Amino acid sequence: MTIRSPLAPDKFPNLPAIDGLGLAVAASGLKYKNRDDLLLMTLCETATVAGVFTRSDTVAAPVIWSRDVVASGRARAILTNAGNANAFTGERGRDTVHQTSTALAGALGFSADQILLASTGVIGEPLESTKLSAYFPQLVANQGASWEQAAGAILTTDTFAKGAHVSCDIDGVAVNICGIAKGSGMIAPNMATMLGYIATDAALPTDILQALLTTATDHSFNAITVDSDTSTNDTVFLIATGRAKTAMITSADDPKLAGFRDALTKLMVDLATQIVRDGEGASKFITIGVSGAESDHQARHIGLAIANSPLVKTAIAGEDANWGRIVMAVGKSGFGIDQQAIGIKIGGFPVAANGMRVTDYDETPIAAHMQTASIDIAVSVGAGAGVATVYSCDLTHGYISINADYRS
Amino acid sequence: MTIRSPLAPDKFPNLPAIDGLGLAVAASGLKYKNRDDLLLMTLCETATVAGVFTRSDTVAAPVIWSRDVVASGRARAILTNAGNANAFTGERGRDTVHQTSTALAGALGFSADQILLASTGVIGEPLESTKLSAYFPQLVANQGASWEQAAGAILTTDTFAKGAHVSCDIDGVAVNICGIAKGSGMIAPNMATMLGYIATDAALPTDILQALLTTATDHSFNAITVDSDTSTNDTVFLIATGRAKTAMITSADDPKLAGFRDALTKLMVDLATQIVRDGEGASKFITIGVSGAESDHQARHIGLAIANSPLVKTAIAGEDANWGRIVMAVGKSGFGIDQQAIGIKIGGFPVAANGMRVTDYDETPIAAHMQTASIDIAVSVGAGAGVATVYSCDLTHGYISINADYRS
Repeated sequence: MTIRSPLAPDKFPNLPAIDGLGLAVAASGLKYKNRDDLLLMTLCETATVAGVFTRSDTVAAPVIWSRDVVASGRARAILTNAGNANAFTGERGRDTVHQTSTALAGALGFSADQILLASTGVIGEPLESTKLSAYFPQLVANQGASWEQAAGAILTTDTFAKGAHVSCDIDGVAVNICGIAKGSGMIAPNMATMLGYIATDAALPTDILQALLTTATDHSFNAITVDSDTSTNDTVFLIATGRAKTAMITSADDPKLAGFRDALTKLMVDLATQIVRDGEGASKFITIGVSGAESDHQARHIGLAIANSPLVKTAIAGEDANWGRIVMAVGKSGFGIDQQAIGIKIGGFPVAANGMRVTDYDETPIAAHMQTASIDIAVSVGAGAGVATVYSCDLTHGYISINADYRS
Repeated sequence: MTIRSPLAPDKFPNLPAIDGLGLAVAASGLKYKNRDDLLLMTLCETATVAGVFTRSDTVAAPVIWSRDVVASGRARAILTNAGNANAFTGERGRDTVHQTSTALAGALGFSADQILLASTGVIGEPLESTKLSAYFPQLVANQGASWEQAAGAILTTDTFAKGAHVSCDIDGVAVNICGIAKGSGMIAPNMATMLGYIATDAALPTDILQALLTTATDHSFNAITVDSDTSTNDTVFLIATGRAKTAMITSADDPKLAGFRDALTKLMVDLATQIVRDGEGASKFITIGVSGAESDHQARHIGLAIANSPLVKTAIAGEDANWGRIVMAVGKSGFGIDQQAIGIKIGGFPVAANGMRVTDYDETPIAAHMQTASIDIAVSVGAGAGVATVYSCDLTHGYISINADYRS
């Protein structure tokens, strides 16, 4: 790991164990030296699972495999390796996935179709199953790793381990939700992000778990961007071990789940924004609120057009209140926005209204805000009630240094 | 102007005068000191005009004005100012456009609806008409400027003046086509680019001129990108003075126009690639050929997904043959490409075929190609007969330096 991001939280938070979930890590040395790069999560028999995956057309072999397993709603283990994405590896990559899941199933006493797989790292390099399976006895025998160790084992270009915890109750029964994630570059998730693992001890049927995950993903991992590039391996799993004796739930809209839904979204936004805070080269964390769109979907896409604009991101890196670039980005998003209705605030200070710069525009307070580490942009487009918040980071010399030199 | 781009041509080419077209330049000092920033082009009475404009929703006031004038197919003058885009300036910006065209029409003895306007520069700053009109007497009196002077007067962050010339014949009558353009950042044209002016002495009706321009734009200005950001002011005009006594043409598909069509496309590709060669911070010129797509349109969009990827562009800046990032970019373009059919060559050397790295992959010749200034990427996707070529540049520390410091 290189120097910790200046936007990183002070430390890894305290995450309690989730009853019914085991964690184990190992160092295969496949790419990284002197650090863990394998994570095994084992799930109890009652566990249900849901997943969201990249929408890329060049999805990696483990994603293709895990989509099928998740469709069954049940799994007993998740194996993750960091350093090789097993993406664009053709038939050979699919063979690796079969061999790996079969070997791990054997070591655990389950069947291969109960094994979820995730990989992250370089694209296009063959991955040998035996390089992973050599560590299965060790992983199976030592399932007492901490969440922080688990979060550390899945990193690639990340500069800090990412975790979050929330607690809530379902109809009076206390439950915990813990999550870890990784991601720093190739971040413009489309239905998911690099890798995220969220576990709760609540008891929730698979279809409800999937509905909760999909909704919360739209507000979290699908609302962030670092560099507009969508990974071949984006995967988020949500696991419910069922060890907390929560009430029977038959609908994702059940009022009993209100607290859980909010807690899950809060945790996923926390993890997603940690990825932005670890964006390659990032020196500023950017929050973009869009209101007045025709729909929430449209609002999110206008927000992402601003969030992905290299000219907006470099202006923020340079602490330049160059709001004309925000206008440009709204204009290029292509929704037929009426420019006379566009309003912009930066740091809460009005910049533009009714399609032009505000009268008596004073750049002084905005220039001061631009010098802070958290930049707030609010855009209203006057077309309806759609709102969204998206998160991004600035584009700096650090991003160029990392990506022009390093084969991730 | 800063240091000339390392990818710039050696010198401005020789462009002959176009009979029926006058050029005049002046230095208003509005933003830039010690350089021309106003260009007046005057057109003879027989001239026809066509135009393509940005598809941005936040189009600038002069674009709105010129779209209406072009719809008539006739104009007698084009005034361009550099340094202020008159974009997102609301009612005040529209007043400026009316006042400017009325004043110039008076100075020339035409009517305001015969005046085309174009502006380039900072967005959101009010532009006073009188700052321009003070120079109209001087511009009208001195119409002997060269093409090189004209090309120099419209630049903003550009590091070199851009011009091109081709000659051809229409049914045996020799004609010239000359063009100039500007652009360096905020380049992801959508129907046009920053500013381009192309003039011929051929005689061509407006509707045919427009059809020719639109088709050639798809292969030139719509096939380039520097930073994926679409300008509010993109404008390309094509002028036919009619002074060459070419045959009557009644269809854009007329076989007599075959040579002219090819020459026009060649000239526009030349100008468009000069903009890429002046891309902010560029150190490598990138040509991306896509074949086997379902349509030419799809091929162009796959090419632009690669051309716009920050991770592809930084890998090229770092001379790293990190072809997995090309795979990622094809995957994120979202056309449902079958990854088993994807093939990739770099510098003519096979890298990937049938959805995986080629057997006996040897990076040596590819690594050598990556060290050259012109990078060639060829991608086949096995879905049909659609082809396209797009042009881009790398993403370097220079881009960050220019855009994090400079309010353009």
